[in-house]
Amino acid sequence: MAQQLDLHDDRLFPADPTIRGIARRLYASVRDLPIISPHGHTDPQWFASNAPFTDATALLLAPDHYLYRMLYSQGISLDRLGVGSRQGPSSADPREAWRLFAKHFYLFRGTPSWLWLNHVFTQVFGFTQRLDESTADEYFDAIGAKLASPEFRPRALFERFNIEVIATTESPIDTLEHHETIRRSGWRGQVITAYRPDAVIDPEHEVFPDALKRFGEITGEDVHSWQGYLRAHRARRAAFAKLGATSTDHGHITAATADLSPAESERLFARVIAGDANANEAELFRAAMLVEMAKMSLDDGLVMQIHPGSFRNHNRWLFDRYGRDKGADIPLPTNYVHALQPLLSRLGNNSRLSIIVFTLDETSYSRELAPLAGHYPALKLGPAWWFHDSPEGMMRFREYTTETAGFYNTVGFNDDTRAFLSIPARHDVARRIDSVFLARLVAEHRMFEDEAAEVVRDLAYRLPKEAYRLPTSA
Amino acid sequence: MAQQLDLHDDRLFPADPTIRGIARRLYASVRDLPIISPHGHTDPQWFASNAPFTDATALLLAPDHYLYRMLYSQGISLDRLGVGSRQGPSSADPREAWRLFAKHFYLFRGTPSWLWLNHVFTQVFGFTQRLDESTADEYFDAIGAKLASPEFRPRALFERFNIEVIATTESPIDTLEHHETIRRSGWRGQVITAYRPDAVIDPEHEVFPDALKRFGEITGEDVHSWQGYLRAHRARRAAFAKLGATSTDHGHITAATADLSPAESERLFARVIAGDANANEAELFRAAMLVEMAKMSLDDGLVMQIHPGSFRNHNRWLFDRYGRDKGADIPLPTNYVHALQPLLSRLGNNSRLSIIVFTLDETSYSRELAPLAGHYPALKLGPAWWFHDSPEGMMRFREYTTETAGFYNTVGFNDDTRAFLSIPARHDVARRIDSVFLARLVAEHRMFEDEAAEVVRDLAYRLPKEAYRLPTSA
Amino acid sequence: MAQQLDLHDDRLFPADPTIRGIARRLYASVRDLPIISPHGHTDPQWFASNAPFTDATALLLAPDHYLYRMLYSQGISLDRLGVGSRQGPSSADPREAWRLFAKHFYLFRGTPSWLWLNHVFTQVFGFTQRLDESTADEYFDAIGAKLASPEFRPRALFERFNIEVIATTESPIDTLEHHETIRRSGWRGQVITAYRPDAVIDPEHEVFPDALKRFGEITGEDVHSWQGYLRAHRARRAAFAKLGATSTDHGHITAATADLSPAESERLFARVIAGDANANEAELFRAAMLVEMAKMSLDDGLVMQIHPGSFRNHNRWLFDRYGRDKGADIPLPTNYVHALQPLLSRLGNNSRLSIIVFTLDETSYSRELAPLAGHYPALKLGPAWWFHDSPEGMMRFREYTTETAGFYNTVGFNDDTRAFLSIPARHDVARRIDSVFLARLVAEHRMFEDEAAEVVRDLAYRLPKEAYRLPTSA
Repeated sequence: MAQQLDLHDDRLFPADPTIRGIARRLYASVRDLPIISPHGHTDPQWFASNAPFTDATALLLAPDHYLYRMLYSQGISLDRLGVGSRQGPSSADPREAWRLFAKHFYLFRGTPSWLWLNHVFTQVFGFTQRLDESTADEYFDAIGAKLASPEFRPRALFERFNIEVIATTESPIDTLEHHETIRRSGWRGQVITAYRPDAVIDPEHEVFPDALKRFGEITGEDVHSWQGYLRAHRARRAAFAKLGATSTDHGHITAATADLSPAESERLFARVIAGDANANEAELFRAAMLVEMAKMSLDDGLVMQIHPGSFRNHNRWLFDRYGRDKGADIPLPTNYVHALQPLLSRLGNNSRLSIIVFTLDETSYSRELAPLAGHYPALKLGPAWWFHDSPEGMMRFREYTTETAGFYNTVGFNDDTRAFLSIPARHDVARRIDSVFLARLVAEHRMFEDEAAEVVRDLAYRLPKEAYRLPTSA
Repeated sequence: MAQQLDLHDDRLFPADPTIRGIARRLYASVRDLPIISPHGHTDPQWFASNAPFTDATALLLAPDHYLYRMLYSQGISLDRLGVGSRQGPSSADPREAWRLFAKHFYLFRGTPSWLWLNHVFTQVFGFTQRLDESTADEYFDAIGAKLASPEFRPRALFERFNIEVIATTESPIDTLEHHETIRRSGWRGQVITAYRPDAVIDPEHEVFPDALKRFGEITGEDVHSWQGYLRAHRARRAAFAKLGATSTDHGHITAATADLSPAESERLFARVIAGDANANEAELFRAAMLVEMAKMSLDDGLVMQIHPGSFRNHNRWLFDRYGRDKGADIPLPTNYVHALQPLLSRLGNNSRLSIIVFTLDETSYSRELAPLAGHYPALKLGPAWWFHDSPEGMMRFREYTTETAGFYNTVGFNDDTRAFLSIPARHDVARRIDSVFLARLVAEHRMFEDEAAEVVRDLAYRLPKEAYRLPTSA
Repeated sequence: MAQQLDLHDDRLFPADPTIRGIARRLYASVRDLPIISPHGHTDPQWFASNAPFTDATALLLAPDHYLYRMLYSQGISLDRLGVGSRQGPSSADPREAWRLFAKHFYLFRGTPSWLWLNHVFTQVFGFTQRLDESTADEYFDAIGAKLASPEFRPRALFERFNIEVIATTESPIDTLEHHETIRRSGWRGQVITAYRPDAVIDPEHEVFPDALKRFGEITGEDVHSWQGYLRAHRARRAAFAKLGATSTDHGHITAATADLSPAESERLFARVIAGDANANEAELFRAAMLVEMAKMSLDDGLVMQIHPGSFRNHNRWLFDRYGRDKGADIPLPTNYVHALQPLLSRLGNNSRLSIIVFTLDETSYSRELAPLAGHYPALKLGPAWWFHDSPEGMMRFREYTTETAGFYNTVGFNDDTRAFLSIPARHDVARRIDSVFLARLVAEHRMFEDEAAEVVRDLAYRLPKEAYRLPTSA
């Protein structure tokens, strides 16, 4: 029943032989470049402890919301897939969960998960038969056996994947102990952190009061005073930078920014602290804090990432039972023109500041983001994000932004994933798609091939390092 | 002057020989599958009476707003095209109207109407010369002659078109007599109805008061009480289901849904009945009724279709003279994320419920609809709709939804047309475009060809039958 | 270091040999047609004085916001690029500015500026080496030398470019002296004006009070009375028409229109004149004036252009130092359905009126503009505008509008530029892209090649002349 699985060397290249030929040449020149992963969500504990991963379900299925959201959409309960709930870990047998996944693997046809997984199956694990009901057990057993071997420990995979540097994402109240451990271990892998302060900035976040309390404890500052609160941020930013952080990351529901006077900020903060802020004031506070963060970035040099536009926990029923991050975050129309103006008018002309903006609303690519990035010195565009981190999504990103913003107001690729094994697959897709986009321009005589060769290398390697201010060598 | 007309066997296939070769193979495997038409607007009287159609203008031009809107946009009055007004039927000579259409047929270059009509002209009527001023009379005469023959009666065409099942759309106050007649006639063609209650649900619909009165009469319920009104819906839904209906259809201006308490619903209904509802309350009532309809669907199993986002009767001048449905309905930006949340959070996790959503706002494909359908068990995406029921529109639908929702959260194709003769052409276009989209994935090594062969068949036949819960065999 | 520069004859044609072959044939049939440029921003003084252009920086770089916005986005100050500020002209050495531009020319890879400039470099100036740091001086010197020769004077270039007619854009308070001079000179080049009354219509325009005063002086009307104000418009429209104007142009922030009663208009105007209008009233006044302008167009036959959706002077810091039009205008989401309804419902059924609408919000192409233009006799779609006046932008315009509006509710191409030398390049790009779009339809058997040959010629020549009501021969 199972059929042969092989990943074609020309995958993602167009059928047209002229474009394919150029794309092959461009891709060949970047295929083996080290991976720069300046934004993602892998767990630093993996690299600190270097403990083996346990099984296929725990490694690949249960933590990957791309996978279980699709299965869930077809009526398969999360419990059966090994996904934990507010009641605790799933009681599903990992092998049974994997069988269920294998049986429904056809649902991923046409999706990036199909590409990433088949990449992992062939390149990382060496499978030559496709995953389906008939091979589910064979996959589960073989993956389990490999994961127990030294070659599949986190650090060994990191090195095999040719990762030059990877950033994880931590909250200001994280102790960063795993990053400390990695540093002290003497291992030469570059794993750095990034400062993600949403939990202590968003008054509507369910953990805000607790996080704020912990924020005070960890910094020794009076975070219930405006100045103490700002000092606490400065202190934690410095601590993060010491452990390699070069960036902050802000996942607000909108891109709103606000340039308040000190007195206005202080009054607003007092209402927030008192728990009196209504929805508009909470939004204003998040908006004002983006400007505060930008000001601190001018001092400490941290690059600022803004990821707006997701309606978190859309499915109330599911949220009540399973909590956050269960595949029920849905993009919203997102306005950048009015939202970013206070920040950009105030600080956007300063090219010492580096702001990287992402979007889930593709309509903003050509209408708003490319015009903004093609003008403001401080602004750059992050790559196609989340649902758009896909072949069609990446291609549209280039098609809709390049003519107005060029290539050099974008920052190359970042993978934004917690699915560690998929990282090489994701970067490979990005390099292939950029090669194809450039190859088409060359084939249509809109760019010279030597120019394209330079651009494809810049996108794969130079621009992410520069945009994220990563050290030039390990 | 007239030139040869032939429809190429490879129409809509890309020029690239690799993709074209794969597309041909995929298309060949679905070309002759029976037509499943679960949503449309043909007139059941045609199949009940089986009376011959009269002439080319009455059959093809006067009822087709795709055609006369284009001619109207170039300054040709509706009166001259055989389109009736509030004053009654047009007094235009059908032959003169047809000549006017033929003379301006070049306006349809690049539009789906060009494809559909040339399909009808060649495949249904056997013309070999193009329609233009010089062939107008020849066309008019030949079509008239054929329509008078038994082979061109509605039931004969239905069989020749290889339609396995077709749904029409009726109002709750329709007597369904034509459907009764068809059932009693012994003819084996499957013509079923669908429940479209807008006229008794939308307080702002101009016929609402009259429709409500008739709704009470036809059901014998006190439709001026909230409970009686709900009972009336249940009764008519049951009557529709008895005549084969498997779905309801809701054409609201927005996708708003609201989950009200029984007391809130009752209060709101009282204001609606009293004629006191303002615009916000009318919107809230429509929103609340979508949740009520969904609850009834959980009881009676009817699939629920939501078609929002059209600003009806945009042209006041035209509406005052010609009434509804005269080509002046214009799409609006449509929000689904907030709008559908009350319904989906309440009932969207129940996979016994089947909700099919359509859109006229293509920006929602990748931003909202694919993420929603790729998560909620109850939600599926209807095909590219109305202005987007076209080669480019269908291709964009797949390009923008597949990576997030996959193929299996979509429902295949439905034609949504009142232009009976165009039905085979429309399904043919859909099968070709899906073949091309899949062929590209295969050519780019993103899907195996055996997978594509399964998907193309699912899209053409299996998915619409399953999504609309149609009986497995006639 | 510098490399060979040659512009390929097949540039912008797809690699696929079938489509390329058809595109070549279509393009060959329109390549040498005269240029119709009914909307643009060249300076009539050039053609009046016929004085030589000075140097490469002054001609090509300093006035072109496409160029300096990109350089500015990478941290290069406007002062160094020869761009003047509120303090006066830039003190930068033109040669140094040009070197800076040359060094950063790689930033334009993938942008239309790359195409336009390389077209100008090869076709107008005959360069055979690419522009970069090493050739900067050679370029600067050679361009300077050529500009001093008679063959590069404005009128000579106009003739060499095969421009049949070009429109400039003037304010109602412009004396039109340059147009008078051109007329009196006996030169046969057709340079006409267009009526752009924003400065006397927009109460929020910073020059509004001064412009209004001057409007009264130039017309001798009491422009502080509603009737006098309307008479002043009629007078200036007539004066513009006398100097060849066939159109008006309206660059409002939104597309809002309003159909007020005379009494309402008069009351609103009184508040505007008194400086009492708030933001809503200012918007309402602009909206009402679009309907007034349309009414005047019915009288005097001027075509009406509406260009909404740009947030002007987004960068406050830059605006304070450098003023308007410095590359900091950012598109906004733009609604047309509600906005245009008052105008269209009142006058849109009158095919004697011609309204051409543009957009910077590509989402409106298929959702709103094509459906509106495919219905209303008075409405036509302007070409892909501004940031979308580019190969990808033009192609998307056709892909998103053709199936609903057809080709004949669009107006062909206009260049909308102040960069005189780029005009042939821009029209060449448009003709190539239309050829490619049509070639694909032909290759996919969705259009006959003889039909495509007619359409491509209509788009390049006939439609802009008809839509803008330009005289049939010079």
